[in-house]
Amino acid sequence: MSVELEFLGTGDARRMPVYGCNCRACRLAQAQPARARQACSALLSCQGYRLMLDAGRTDLCERFPPGSLDGVLLTHYHMDHVMGLFHLRWGLGLPLPVFGPADPLGCDDLFKHPGLLEFQESLQPFQPREIGPFRVVPLPLNHSRLTHGYLISVEGSCLAYLTDTVGLPADTLDYLQRHRPDMLVLDCSEPPRDTPPRNHNDLGLALALAAEVGAGQSWLTHIGHRLDDYWLDHPQLPAGVEVAWDGQCVELGSGTAVAAIARSSLERQHG
Amino acid sequence: MSVELEFLGTGDARRMPVYGCNCRACRLAQAQPARARQACSALLSCQGYRLMLDAGRTDLCERFPPGSLDGVLLTHYHMDHVMGLFHLRWGLGLPLPVFGPADPLGCDDLFKHPGLLEFQESLQPFQPREIGPFRVVPLPLNHSRLTHGYLISVEGSCLAYLTDTVGLPADTLDYLQRHRPDMLVLDCSEPPRDTPPRNHNDLGLALALAAEVGAGQSWLTHIGHRLDDYWLDHPQLPAGVEVAWDGQCVELGSGTAVAAIARSSLERQHG
Repeated sequence: MSVELEFLGTGDARRMPVYGCNCRACRLAQAQPARARQACSALLSCQGYRLMLDAGRTDLCERFPPGSLDGVLLTHYHMDHVMGLFHLRWGLGLPLPVFGPADPLGCDDLFKHPGLLEFQESLQPFQPREIGPFRVVPLPLNHSRLTHGYLISVEGSCLAYLTDTVGLPADTLDYLQRHRPDMLVLDCSEPPRDTPPRNHNDLGLALALAAEVGAGQSWLTHIGHRLDDYWLDHPQLPAGVEVAWDGQCVELGSGTAVAAIARSSLERQHG
Repeated sequence: MSVELEFLGTGDARRMPVYGCNCRACRLAQAQPARARQACSALLSCQGYRLMLDAGRTDLCERFPPGSLDGVLLTHYHMDHVMGLFHLRWGLGLPLPVFGPADPLGCDDLFKHPGLLEFQESLQPFQPREIGPFRVVPLPLNHSRLTHGYLISVEGSCLAYLTDTVGLPADTLDYLQRHRPDMLVLDCSEPPRDTPPRNHNDLGLALALAAEVGAGQSWLTHIGHRLDDYWLDHPQLPAGVEVAWDGQCVELGSGTAVAAIARSSLERQHG
């Protein structure tokens, strides 16, 4: 069976184009919907089980008919990662299991009025949990709120999904180096800066982390408009590191598919 | 100058069609986008000033280019009335004044990270505030959270916008009867029930309130799917009371325009 990851959204909290912004990247994103970026999220599919990583898009009801999602795995409870749950919760039909870190506040009244969302026992750092066919290990990240990255193993392949974060805690990096993932999806929000942003990676930090983790393939996500603008002038990335785009699908454990999609990504960047 | 009210959304927190629902009304709303209902909200325009009443739609950035909104007037801070602000706030450009009741919690981190939203000094019950060309009087409502209706006067016309509420507090009803509005927009979420819902009007209560307020024209909004389903069998409403639909525009103080639009509304209901 194949393992597929679809990038549902690759933007930061501002999304792309940024409301009211006239920078080159935002103008391009207005003109070319393929360059727009929605709230950072992804869909991981294997053996017919569809696990959504974060839920910040606001078109989830339209996009995922009832029964087409099997679970939601949250990195944290910032609004741009959970907003779509406020629509999903009032649906009728099957309950939808939601997994996330032990953040007692959640977001607004989600815990008080979960509707069809079934919030599961909180995930704990480094404690594996079986979710459908996936073995999920929560990894602490550095963010302004309790946030987990995840190392997700299935069918002999292994994905690390790490957003939102600035740098990585030492024990998380150590864990990743001992369980080297085939694929890394990493927060990269800003162009290179002399001092990193407070809550997200800039490009310099992200590339250094990608090298340290040493995944077979690394995808940069949670991308802000200043970084998209920067890439218009500096499109070069190290081998094995690619920019993710909304709607892009990559196959885990298939070097060929990854390479094919990486080319189309590069073409889009230069288009 | 004319005063125009556009219903941006006329649904309840579940919206229409309800996710996963197969009732007649939801099936119709799936097949006919004109029968879909977004989060309850409206746009009031006069003298070039555009005041948005509530902000629960999630397409505000796409719908209102920067500079096309002059202010936001919130009835309360439930998610389905403020969700669109989480996108608007991260825009670049002009600040956007936001008026609302004195609810210190607001919603999630809106007050902590307002971005371009400029939250104004809280409105107080029965204390008039000038907002652009409008004179706005906050009226306490009966809801699960601190909520204001508003009596809005401009150019000799007067609109009462009352949602979310179940019934009306005595002093609010008294105020409305002394300042009889030309137009009433009223919460009406459920079909007639033996016991009213806890936080919203059913149709029986809404019609009784409309008669007591005695506005020239009354529009029902915040409509749930069970009520739309009920109306498929019982479309009759008293004279001067109409069902609001998303995208409908009514002119305040113009009986002719209201009547014309009322007919198209009835046609849609029967279509």
